[in-house]
Amino acid sequence: MAVTEAAATTTAGTAPELPAYEPTERTVPTRSRERASYDKTLVHAILDEAYLCHLGFVRDGAPVVLPTLYARVGDRLYVHGSTGSRPLRMAREQREEEPGLAVCVTVTHVDGLVLARSAFHHSINYRSAVVHGIACQVTDEAEKRMALDALVDQVVPGRSRDSRPANAKELAATAVLRLDLAEVSAKVRTGGANDEPEDLSLPHWAGVVPVAPRHGAPVPNGDLEPSIALPGYLAAPKR
Amino acid sequence: MAVTEAAATTTAGTAPELPAYEPTERTVPTRSRERASYDKTLVHAILDEAYLCHLGFVRDGAPVVLPTLYARVGDRLYVHGSTGSRPLRMAREQREEEPGLAVCVTVTHVDGLVLARSAFHHSINYRSAVVHGIACQVTDEAEKRMALDALVDQVVPGRSRDSRPANAKELAATAVLRLDLAEVSAKVRTGGANDEPEDLSLPHWAGVVPVAPRHGAPVPNGDLEPSIALPGYLAAPKR
Repeated sequence: MAVTEAAATTTAGTAPELPAYEPTERTVPTRSRERASYDKTLVHAILDEAYLCHLGFVRDGAPVVLPTLYARVGDRLYVHGSTGSRPLRMAREQREEEPGLAVCVTVTHVDGLVLARSAFHHSINYRSAVVHGIACQVTDEAEKRMALDALVDQVVPGRSRDSRPANAKELAATAVLRLDLAEVSAKVRTGGANDEPEDLSLPHWAGVVPVAPRHGAPVPNGDLEPSIALPGYLAAPKR
Repeated sequence: MAVTEAAATTTAGTAPELPAYEPTERTVPTRSRERASYDKTLVHAILDEAYLCHLGFVRDGAPVVLPTLYARVGDRLYVHGSTGSRPLRMAREQREEEPGLAVCVTVTHVDGLVLARSAFHHSINYRSAVVHGIACQVTDEAEKRMALDALVDQVVPGRSRDSRPANAKELAATAVLRLDLAEVSAKVRTGGANDEPEDLSLPHWAGVVPVAPRHGAPVPNGDLEPSIALPGYLAAPKR
């Protein structure tokens, strides 16, 4: 029910309603299924509100999870890194059956701390999106430049137009991976503590502590020319 | 150099200096090595400031990354979940060579958005800790209860004493995994934008937008008895 509420809120705007992602064996959770959603509008909203993901891949049979920046462009995600970094190098190596790197990209927002009377029912209000797929290296230069702009704009919308684009050397040093949004699920928990009826009379406080990222006042670089004013896209708090 | 600064700040307090984690082939990054640290005090500080990690494991050869709560107790991490959830079930299944589940647990704090004159030098100030190892199910009841208390206290310090402990049924429905902090690294970026000398005269703003989690005013549950006051551990903002 929490998921339905969140999805309804998200689709109540002017954006056209999108079809849902097709659930697969690995995007259907074994528990708390009522929190899972395949709603594209909800998934896109979760992805668009963040810029940092946790990228998982397998190296020598063991899992590796690294924090990295990403951008969503339509039904694709892009991540980037030095051409020498491990996941980018691994994605270039052709596997026997197909090119690319099997990845799982997860984005999580913490919205609140849920305190219940019972330790067992303590929880977190959150929204997460999990994307499974094969990340492939972008070789087309126009797509690569578009993705690099999108990666900058995902962090600060409008910023890419107000910075020097990558030159040939920087472009060559940067690898970009593309991941189609096809096998995707969201998970959402909202609301207060769900205690057992027999615990409601216990003398413990119950409720939610809201959590959200706070963006502070921008701090100019020490070497910034004083005549350069704070740009409009930074003057208003991002969120 | 950024890492040295951060480590120095962390160890400047009263805590005794701890030995460093031994770097291994997979905890030495292929790039930005100057940002890597194996300082235990720094790693513990990064882990203690958060409560949500991204847990990676391998299922049918593919990576899976799920957000989940954790607690640090000494040189161990604990995560928990329903006995029916996938990683908990997988950790119970005995592998041929050894019990447990190969995992990677990653914790990341975003501290700032770094805007450079060049798109290429845009970055994020962050502190992350990455833990590799084999997560094993906790079978000792005393250790399990201690870990469940620690999981509650990691989110809100002092809360476990002010809630009803798990009863036998709840304890049986919850699985706890233990992961030794042995193969661990931290990565830290601090400071302003590092533009190329020839870009310093470009007319683009450069600097840092600070980011930190904000904890709002606690919202009592709708079914909370009005005579129950806000507890002291919630009266002051957590961080």
